[in-house]
Amino acid sequence: MSKAPAELSGEERLIARYFRPLAKHPGAFGLIDDAAALVPPAGCDLVLKTDGLIGGVHFFPDDPADAVAKKALRVNLSDLAAKGARPLGFLLALALPQEIGPAWLEPFARGLGEDAEFFEFPLLGGDTDRTPGPITISIAALGAVFHGKMIRRSGAKPGDRVVVTGTIGDAALGLLLRRDPTTAKRWNLNRGHQDYLKARYLLPQPRNAIVEALRTYATAAMDVSDGLVGDLAKLCRASGVTAEIDVESVPLSDAARAARAKKPALVETILTGGDDYEVVATLPVGAVEAFRQATSAAHVLVTEIGKVVAGEGTARFLDRKRKMVCFARPSFSHF
Amino acid sequence: MSKAPAELSGEERLIARYFRPLAKHPGAFGLIDDAAALVPPAGCDLVLKTDGLIGGVHFFPDDPADAVAKKALRVNLSDLAAKGARPLGFLLALALPQEIGPAWLEPFARGLGEDAEFFEFPLLGGDTDRTPGPITISIAALGAVFHGKMIRRSGAKPGDRVVVTGTIGDAALGLLLRRDPTTAKRWNLNRGHQDYLKARYLLPQPRNAIVEALRTYATAAMDVSDGLVGDLAKLCRASGVTAEIDVESVPLSDAARAARAKKPALVETILTGGDDYEVVATLPVGAVEAFRQATSAAHVLVTEIGKVVAGEGTARFLDRKRKMVCFARPSFSHF
Repeated sequence: MSKAPAELSGEERLIARYFRPLAKHPGAFGLIDDAAALVPPAGCDLVLKTDGLIGGVHFFPDDPADAVAKKALRVNLSDLAAKGARPLGFLLALALPQEIGPAWLEPFARGLGEDAEFFEFPLLGGDTDRTPGPITISIAALGAVFHGKMIRRSGAKPGDRVVVTGTIGDAALGLLLRRDPTTAKRWNLNRGHQDYLKARYLLPQPRNAIVEALRTYATAAMDVSDGLVGDLAKLCRASGVTAEIDVESVPLSDAARAARAKKPALVETILTGGDDYEVVATLPVGAVEAFRQATSAAHVLVTEIGKVVAGEGTARFLDRKRKMVCFARPSFSHF
Repeated sequence: MSKAPAELSGEERLIARYFRPLAKHPGAFGLIDDAAALVPPAGCDLVLKTDGLIGGVHFFPDDPADAVAKKALRVNLSDLAAKGARPLGFLLALALPQEIGPAWLEPFARGLGEDAEFFEFPLLGGDTDRTPGPITISIAALGAVFHGKMIRRSGAKPGDRVVVTGTIGDAALGLLLRRDPTTAKRWNLNRGHQDYLKARYLLPQPRNAIVEALRTYATAAMDVSDGLVGDLAKLCRASGVTAEIDVESVPLSDAARAARAKKPALVETILTGGDDYEVVATLPVGAVEAFRQATSAAHVLVTEIGKVVAGEGTARFLDRKRKMVCFARPSFSHF
């Protein structure tokens, strides 16, 4: 196949330069066909998810392009992890404003390639358009679980314990710090704490490392992307149960703890702000210890934060005195 | 599972109202889980495609929302058809400006549902965000072909005949009519011709009805979305062959023929303008008649427009005197 680059359209040249080097999966056909082909793993169901990032909405226009690419993949990988699925590959739909050129595309493609490699999550195909609006990145993610074994939101049972990975609220605090730098002083945060919180907003850490443990032990799970309070309520509604959460046991980073010590009202931001990309799951009480051991082998912190009781589908957050904490806006929502 | 609607976020209410009624596939879980689950058909490969529409780029802001929804599905269905794949389902990523409300969403969801039903192409999952930019609709389409049987761009062989479905150039002319209504008079088009061309731009007719015939007979195929000249060149490059196309045999509608008769230079728009969503395919010479019979049973017009010869990967368009026609811009490209 010989070809003179001059014969290629601008779109073909862009794809060839930035994205073809990432399309190593044989079914991506080097991105020169209309579609990709994927042989589904035997005995498995596909797990399908689409989630996107919009410039000025989900990231700051001056965020490094490699981090934006990684965040776009990771918010989807986080859903696959919470569903017990291993990544198979992704499609990328990219809408770019006129001013976006090599200075953004080169690091974007590099970041995308690095995470595709790290998470074994190959680029299968894509679509590239110009837009008069902001950068818009849609990822369609494909994963695989053994037939019938996707972890649902709907499996939580009274008596189960509620656990969460990592720490909660960091990204929501990091976003406030990005929006208003004077906040750091009011919260009395040192530079290390500020950097930590901002990094947690910039680049989530999806929990794909514990997917086996989740599939083995979880009765229900979801990723925490719109705030723990609202997301856990969704899980409870889907399961037809009530969760009772001990607010003081929700795991916080040192930085979040420092901010909250200075300004106690931040507990609402921490619990409802979103962008955590941690996993909240329910487990039979007898499985908690085994789950914790399996996850600690993967170096993922897991904390028990409450329990499931019979009820009509709500999450109750209780303070030290077992009094219910009310939130003005339990969940992030675009609408 | 009982729930008070007041507990739902605005995003959940929007999804419940407009999109849950469409999520009839059991693996869509009523759109209340993080992800969808799909059991892949036994013995089949998945065919994966993503293609999107952006308001003001791919459709006019005042286009009816039901037609926009259908176009978003059909541009993807067209790729599945050209690859010999039957539709399995789709994911929808929707970014909506602030001003978009029920008056747009209701007909959008209705149109989406009508085509999902008609093409047996169920909604599996989605993502909905606000954007400061134009309406942006990304579809990720999943189809199935028997293992190893996806029709590639790369299978054309010297001696094959080149065929195309339907008529070429209508949508490109329709777009010019939409952009500048005075064009109709200069082209001397009657009202019927104008309406026909504009309708062809508004709503493509994907050729999923002939997918069996394509899979049985085609050596290579692709959908014509960026203009016949440029798209056929892509197929020829992928196959490492040259196509010789007789310009006068390219099928035109009565309306396109009338416009071209008045303004012969429109042949360039017709052959390079794009948005046709027809299929161009190559077939062994002995298969053309059988293919034509199979497709006419599905009421799809198929026209032989040229042949494949040995060569280095170009498409040569020849006039009545077998002189090569040159095009200023062979293919639509956003970049």
